[in-house]
Amino acid sequence: MHASDPLVSALIENAPLHAKGEAHLRAAVAEAAAHPGGLVRARLTLAAGRASGLTEAAALGLACAVEYFHTASLLLDDLPCMDDATLRRGRPCAHRVHGEATAILAALAFINRAHALCGAAFAGSTRDVRLAALACVDACLGPAGLLDGQAHDLRFAESAGGARTVGRIAALKTAGLFQLTLLLPALAGPTTAAEWAALRRVSLYWGLAYQAADDLADVLSAEANAGKTTGRDRIRRRPNLALELGVSPARRRIARLVAQGAGAVARLTTGSARWNFLAEAQARLADRIRQAPLSAAA
Amino acid sequence: MHASDPLVSALIENAPLHAKGEAHLRAAVAEAAAHPGGLVRARLTLAAGRASGLTEAAALGLACAVEYFHTASLLLDDLPCMDDATLRRGRPCAHRVHGEATAILAALAFINRAHALCGAAFAGSTRDVRLAALACVDACLGPAGLLDGQAHDLRFAESAGGARTVGRIAALKTAGLFQLTLLLPALAGPTTAAEWAALRRVSLYWGLAYQAADDLADVLSAEANAGKTTGRDRIRRRPNLALELGVSPARRRIARLVAQGAGAVARLTTGSARWNFLAEAQARLADRIRQAPLSAAA
Repeated sequence: MHASDPLVSALIENAPLHAKGEAHLRAAVAEAAAHPGGLVRARLTLAAGRASGLTEAAALGLACAVEYFHTASLLLDDLPCMDDATLRRGRPCAHRVHGEATAILAALAFINRAHALCGAAFAGSTRDVRLAALACVDACLGPAGLLDGQAHDLRFAESAGGARTVGRIAALKTAGLFQLTLLLPALAGPTTAAEWAALRRVSLYWGLAYQAADDLADVLSAEANAGKTTGRDRIRRRPNLALELGVSPARRRIARLVAQGAGAVARLTTGSARWNFLAEAQARLADRIRQAPLSAAA
Repeated sequence: MHASDPLVSALIENAPLHAKGEAHLRAAVAEAAAHPGGLVRARLTLAAGRASGLTEAAALGLACAVEYFHTASLLLDDLPCMDDATLRRGRPCAHRVHGEATAILAALAFINRAHALCGAAFAGSTRDVRLAALACVDACLGPAGLLDGQAHDLRFAESAGGARTVGRIAALKTAGLFQLTLLLPALAGPTTAAEWAALRRVSLYWGLAYQAADDLADVLSAEANAGKTTGRDRIRRRPNLALELGVSPARRRIARLVAQGAGAVARLTTGSARWNFLAEAQARLADRIRQAPLSAAA
């Protein structure tokens, strides 16, 4: 991560910080903004926005919006009433440092700013595209998307469980954010119905693969290794593919999802050079997913 | 409240409910939507939207958005880590029925839907107006508005206190939502700088008067009377004007704020018939504020 990276600069510049604001809220927002993780989603949105004809400023704004939605979801997921995590990105969770209420307010600040940035990114688009963008955000993040996934996630211990239920939750929750990452910028370009369907598949495979790799890491890794609270899925009976299937079948499932993602990406890149950035992202994803559980087990 | 009321119908229709969604989240959203309170803010936004040239559908959508932002703020304010309330609108709070996590997800569903409705309401407006609307929502609700007020509210017990600090918090928190209520729809019409400044004053006086009346009711009333958790501000050392000033000075302050609101409204209605709806709203506000602490004390 370099300060000269335009995405990193935009993430700092657009962060919902108010210089004269209350000190704890300001600190919680500043700390979350200063430790942004791998920026996988933001970089994808930036590349997709550029490839779809958004201006550089609009593509950067949209990338920040997606990253801020992600940041907010982590701040809230870590709360005692959700995952009750203590570590995130190798540091104490925001609610452990600033209290639960401040963590919630920081998440809301990121969410509100993200919506403002989405609106601004599509300000130059037609009315139809703007309305489609609003509907896309609501579909991916709202009560039929990420929020539904999180609601099912919280009630998993009361369910019959099973790999199928785990997959359904990951499709709503993790893949929901990947859908936003790829579909929202694609609205700005002349995307065909076939491309749209392929982008949905890519998001789904990537989201499921990511979540399954995370599940596997939770089972295999020790806390110090992953930089966040792990090993808790079994204790708390949280949805976890590796717990449902076992480690080796989970590894095979992840490999299949990565291959399915590669197939969907290949169909897109064959049709149009616009989607070439996906091939590189697919390779990075495959590397990352292959390494994560191995390094965690090491 | 009548089912034939177009605002009530729109609030039900636009609620962030997913028929196939997780049962607890659906129930929490449905219950909040079914018990909307007095709809003071939503009716003001509807009237302001109509007076500012928005289509009926856009004005209704914007009114729903403001109401949903308000609903979300109540769901979150009531949480154990915020006000730790047990009753809201005469019923157990959402987190007492469905758990804290579900109450937070319900609030997020309302917030996301509210942003979508704001965007849709301004879809027919010029680019400048659309960008101004995005900035207005962020200014009123973001880290320089309502969120900053709530952050200061939470830390009040650590502050030196005083009526001035209480007023500053109310100006950000309660008046912030009133500002959104009046300023956001006004963006759709040809609002002069003088009208804009007067609308800001009206929002400020109304917000401060509302909050001060609420503070007074908390001091004077018993829990059964107000339909929400009361009498706790003293115990928890929350910002409360009546606790800082005493009951009689607080009553005088409220009367002065109501009079200041009436003065700002009079200047607007003298200038243009567009603002006539504010005179009626001012009269209703004055009635409501006069009655609330009296009935609570009775």
